[in-house]
Amino acid sequence: MAAIAANWRRLRDRVKPGTETAAVVKADAYGLGMGPVASALCAAGCGLFFVANLDEGLALRRILPDARIAILNGFALGTGREFARARLMPVLNDLGQIEAWRAKAMETRAPALLHIDTGMSRLGLPPRELDRLVESPDLLSGVELAAILSHLACADDRASPKNRLQRRDFRMALKRLPHAAAGLSASSGIFLGRSYHFDLVRPGAALYGVNPLVGRANPMIQVVNLKAKILQVREIDRGGTVGYGAAHRMARAGRVATVGVGYADGWFRSASPRASAGIAGRRVPVIGRVSMDLVTIDVTGIDPAHARVGAYVDLLDGAYGVNEFARDSGTIGYEVLTALGPRHHRIYRGDADS
Amino acid sequence: MAAIAANWRRLRDRVKPGTETAAVVKADAYGLGMGPVASALCAAGCGLFFVANLDEGLALRRILPDARIAILNGFALGTGREFARARLMPVLNDLGQIEAWRAKAMETRAPALLHIDTGMSRLGLPPRELDRLVESPDLLSGVELAAILSHLACADDRASPKNRLQRRDFRMALKRLPHAAAGLSASSGIFLGRSYHFDLVRPGAALYGVNPLVGRANPMIQVVNLKAKILQVREIDRGGTVGYGAAHRMARAGRVATVGVGYADGWFRSASPRASAGIAGRRVPVIGRVSMDLVTIDVTGIDPAHARVGAYVDLLDGAYGVNEFARDSGTIGYEVLTALGPRHHRIYRGDADS
Repeated sequence: MAAIAANWRRLRDRVKPGTETAAVVKADAYGLGMGPVASALCAAGCGLFFVANLDEGLALRRILPDARIAILNGFALGTGREFARARLMPVLNDLGQIEAWRAKAMETRAPALLHIDTGMSRLGLPPRELDRLVESPDLLSGVELAAILSHLACADDRASPKNRLQRRDFRMALKRLPHAAAGLSASSGIFLGRSYHFDLVRPGAALYGVNPLVGRANPMIQVVNLKAKILQVREIDRGGTVGYGAAHRMARAGRVATVGVGYADGWFRSASPRASAGIAGRRVPVIGRVSMDLVTIDVTGIDPAHARVGAYVDLLDGAYGVNEFARDSGTIGYEVLTALGPRHHRIYRGDADS
Repeated sequence: MAAIAANWRRLRDRVKPGTETAAVVKADAYGLGMGPVASALCAAGCGLFFVANLDEGLALRRILPDARIAILNGFALGTGREFARARLMPVLNDLGQIEAWRAKAMETRAPALLHIDTGMSRLGLPPRELDRLVESPDLLSGVELAAILSHLACADDRASPKNRLQRRDFRMALKRLPHAAAGLSASSGIFLGRSYHFDLVRPGAALYGVNPLVGRANPMIQVVNLKAKILQVREIDRGGTVGYGAAHRMARAGRVATVGVGYADGWFRSASPRASAGIAGRRVPVIGRVSMDLVTIDVTGIDPAHARVGAYVDLLDGAYGVNEFARDSGTIGYEVLTALGPRHHRIYRGDADS
């Protein structure tokens, strides 16, 4: 909790004066638990939260009675009552959503955000719809715009020319639209510099320890520690095979520990054969295929007083965290976090105010 | 539910007369929900269930008051009271677990299972511990053996010589141990033939539609349908890029639909760029990188009456199920099932008795 709060403060202190630092807590706060995470961020001073969909917004409203909450997927017909009751703000992504919301907003004057697509081609008004909106400003009449957003496609690649192109197109769109707070950057975009901050940034992954700077030192604090217990330790002869498909063959006699974690817990099957685990301060290789509930590690050379039944193995920690495990599994830290499964006992440590 | 029950009956009818067909429901019944799944299997006639750990066993006991429940991870010191209260049977995996259980079993006469490792090197008595157990039968005195198990490492590969070697070693172990029901095969092992059935088989994945026959037609019924809604549809010009990293570039002008599912829902990031989705009876490609809450699909050429906001896209169905999605994502159906995330609205259809 303290690490999440510290990461949020670190980003807040990094953005230019006057820029609001929101927080993205969609997907159950990237798998870490929306309740404790959002509460910690709120206590740290965050006042604006983003979630993906209406269900998440309703859940977050029960956790944070006073925060501003924005729904990235926008607004769907027939959900106006839920939005109004929970005081949720949709991020309007196309003319259809604007029209649907406008009928509602005329009654309630509830604010909404507007999302302009500048090159993700995923959500947000495409260029032709932006043109239509500019030509027919009545389409927005009665809609109170709390902010205008766009989203960078290549923010984790400083060298990508797409960043500057998207910033240029976003600035041009802002000039053509009614004045509102502007926001372009999520975690990685914040590190592209002040000209990407505008009035509002919305970090998500960086709050949870994911490195926003691909290929460079991680400026964020690790948030998740993951441990699992050794269930069995066995001596194994040279040439013995381990796991499904007999995929690992021992080059020499040794000892293998079976650990109670598997891909059902988010310890990806693709983690073998590159991933490693920590035991007694040393790194040991994961060997054999990761199975649903179990992984096997080579503990040859580890003191049996440490590599013993009931001892904990470090799967994610400060030295080998979500970014390192993601690299070894062929994915990104974001997916490591959201895949952490329901069987883990979750313990929330550290005071967010400390 | 009907498909799961039918799959269980199909396997039961396949095994040789006198062989009991158990069911593996660990990892929340491979992600499908242990409550409804175990209830359906019980109603279909299954009387013996396997889970991975004590927590799962306690949860299953609350669902099925009368079933026999075995805990694959075995027994740990200090948990005897929970095992006794919930009438759980450990699968004893090493001499340490046997010793710990024996102290308990002397009081309660509660049955346990014994797991002999014949080549997985994961759980189960390694050869040297088996020798010691045979030399010192007192180690088992007072332990009522409900069954003796082993586990095949290469059952999904009919041609692997390891199958016959493990069967041979399992038979040899059985001759050296007190008589008890014997079980070697899980889903794939059942299809290796009657000589792999012994007294007990314990299918898991096949019950849930995972193909137990790698590279051949799936003998099981698909169980999971997965749909997600289209949130936005956009026209996109030739050369336009889609998603993070601008990873997809449109070879010609077309239409892109953004669908409300992502890797936080188990729609793996590794699914791009090979996976596809179904819409209006046609297959369309997933384009661009899968993101946390969203995927983009190319709906150029699909009638806009079908490819419209609010319409459902088929992500898993009878034509493109867990096995096909697993292939396109570089993993196995098992991991597809256990990764299905908490945001899906789960609807249990079909009467298990029908």
